Amino acid sequence: MLHDAIAELAGFNDDPEAGGITREVYTPTYRAALDRVADWMREAGLEVRLDAVGNLFGRWEGDEPDAPLVLTGSHVDTTLNAGRYDGVLGVLGAIEAVHALRAAGTAPRRSIELVAWAGEEPRFGTGCVGSRAAAGRLERTDVDRLRDRDGISMATALRAAGHDPDRLADAEIDPAGVHALVELHIEQGSVLERSGDSIGVVEAIAAPHDLRATLRGAATHAGATPMDLRRDALAGAAEAMCELERIARESPSGATVATVGVLRVRPGAINVVPGEVELDVDVRDSDQEAREHVVGDWLAAARAIADRRGLALEVETIVEDAPVACGEGVVEAAEATARELGLSFRRMTSGAYHDAMMLGARVPIGMIFVPSAGGISHHPDEYTEPTDLEAGVRVLAGTLARLAG
Amino acid sequence: MLHDAIAELAGFNDDPEAGGITREVYTPTYRAALDRVADWMREAGLEVRLDAVGNLFGRWEGDEPDAPLVLTGSHVDTTLNAGRYDGVLGVLGAIEAVHALRAAGTAPRRSIELVAWAGEEPRFGTGCVGSRAAAGRLERTDVDRLRDRDGISMATALRAAGHDPDRLADAEIDPAGVHALVELHIEQGSVLERSGDSIGVVEAIAAPHDLRATLRGAATHAGATPMDLRRDALAGAAEAMCELERIARESPSGATVATVGVLRVRPGAINVVPGEVELDVDVRDSDQEAREHVVGDWLAAARAIADRRGLALEVETIVEDAPVACGEGVVEAAEATARELGLSFRRMTSGAYHDAMMLGARVPIGMIFVPSAGGISHHPDEYTEPTDLEAGVRVLAGTLARLAG
Repeated sequence: MLHDAIAELAGFNDDPEAGGITREVYTPTYRAALDRVADWMREAGLEVRLDAVGNLFGRWEGDEPDAPLVLTGSHVDTTLNAGRYDGVLGVLGAIEAVHALRAAGTAPRRSIELVAWAGEEPRFGTGCVGSRAAAGRLERTDVDRLRDRDGISMATALRAAGHDPDRLADAEIDPAGVHALVELHIEQGSVLERSGDSIGVVEAIAAPHDLRATLRGAATHAGATPMDLRRDALAGAAEAMCELERIARESPSGATVATVGVLRVRPGAINVVPGEVELDVDVRDSDQEAREHVVGDWLAAARAIADRRGLALEVETIVEDAPVACGEGVVEAAEATARELGLSFRRMTSGAYHDAMMLGARVPIGMIFVPSAGGISHHPDEYTEPTDLEAGVRVLAGTLARLAG
Repeated sequence: MLHDAIAELAGFNDDPEAGGITREVYTPTYRAALDRVADWMREAGLEVRLDAVGNLFGRWEGDEPDAPLVLTGSHVDTTLNAGRYDGVLGVLGAIEAVHALRAAGTAPRRSIELVAWAGEEPRFGTGCVGSRAAAGRLERTDVDRLRDRDGISMATALRAAGHDPDRLADAEIDPAGVHALVELHIEQGSVLERSGDSIGVVEAIAAPHDLRATLRGAATHAGATPMDLRRDALAGAAEAMCELERIARESPSGATVATVGVLRVRPGAINVVPGEVELDVDVRDSDQEAREHVVGDWLAAARAIADRRGLALEVETIVEDAPVACGEGVVEAAEATARELGLSFRRMTSGAYHDAMMLGARVPIGMIFVPSAGGISHHPDEYTEPTDLEAGVRVLAGTLARLAG
């Protein structure tokens, strides 16, 4: 049933010809997918509501409706040409877990709320906009400032999707009302595959420090400008990218990762020396000090490169989030469940960014990982074995039962 | 008058808001500009015709109409957001030279033909399509294969502009009918500005060897993929770009230039390790052996980088042209004129690619350069002092008179 639902949701796709799934938040296709998720929530006996930024909730009222509740969920938006499991597993798997708990006759003391957070993927440059709003970490001015690759602001996209950006604050969740939050997700790396474990119990989530660095030189003729008279912004960027890789590999934590995922070259003609290059740099670690060490060393290296080459360097922060430690109670509930089910598991760090992280500073959070074949994610080849998906759902169900009492 | 015509032609612009001039070949804007040039040619008493690929000719019949003629001209298409002098000076300056020669009562023995070649700038990836066709170096299959950045083939663009791609061969010029070809152009570099000379007499034109290199790795999650498990196509490209710069600087000729002007990153999201990168590489020299030495060394370095990083490397040749030596008779006519006019001049190599080069293997060619402020070209700030423009036109007029007899 979970398998069928995942396959059905994969059909909500704006670019099927690319081979993967493209379902960006606030698009009509996204909304259609969300409406289908709402149907499935209702079929599981949940009371459904949509908040001011489009986060979709499904509530299973507990015996003590006023007790702080247990929250679980993930997201159903995707990057461009992505896979079918990222985010989706945590939403459809939670619905499956509710069915399993009901079938087992569970009557939770605390209410359990399922959620599909809006915009975990960074359509607007910044990710987790829905859970960020729920955590009170998204300002009204951010919503005007954040823009997608076509220049559409998040405010415009919200309005087009039938939401009111001026009601942003209504989406904030009172942390006193939340006992714990747990999110089931694919690992998106290859740690579990290499260790042979079925389940990862996350104890910390690494957070990104994202920068946009712009190098400006002179757009001169590629044939007529001798090598020693150039101010080539792309040659400078190439050197800076080599330094980024070297510095990340030498990180004091041994676990920092650094990536340039977006690079824009202007004017972008084969016979013109690039006059301007923009690099989007992503640096992550669950050890914030090590991460900032890498960022600081790289900025110093980039400035030295720019100076030596006669380039101007401008750096803008896109996002700078704090890594989050998971709540020990959530971690223990997940471990106890995996042990009871006889599943092999390991504690681990999440290198990827997740919605759970957004609320991690306010409420106890936890995450349950299942293996990703080849560590591949954000790609049509993203895959998790059905037995692993099922194991993840069983651990989630048991963890929810323990947390809800 | 030349100054007014240059200013008027700059008004034919598809993107005035960008600050520079965008007038790509075979667009309606280009055609309107070409029609205006045809008017000016007629006002100078020239007989105008358009050939099968859109090269515009204006003929001043000599006293011996059957004698091999003297050809002069350049182009009026531009790159994106370009300046107003590149190409335009060689066309409008030639019209101005005809007016000057007529005013001086010159009656040439040989006919003089002015030309505005179509598509010197590489809208379709390859430059000089008009002069290339005139030299018999553009095949019917090329016209179908060559595509612009929107995927429009040159054949489709030709048809839309009212030309017939099947008549391509009609554009070929019989070299027996051409005594010499001379092209007036801005330098697009800063050699003349630095030496303080008004005139550059070109003795050789460097030619490009252009490659498209594609590196393929694995598009994995930027957070969840440890540094030692990545196959990052952009990190590999960065290292390859650093090597390209180093190898070009160490070229045996001391004059090779190498540029990556275009770089495409896929999928191009801040949280995804780039899985595929395409680089357009341009290597030029008037010394072909030195150029090929740089290309060969770089390909070996790029292959070693790709192998070490687990990336696939694919290389495709975009263009590989032979450098051209200018005709001694043309060079001497230009030098004698500059000397007679009391202008300071120097012999030099053209690092940039020009239409004249296309015919250089078939007929004696020459080029006259004027300084470019700051060496800037293909940019809105491209500029040449009016006195330098005028000096260039005077040298062109004298050179044409000498060559036409």
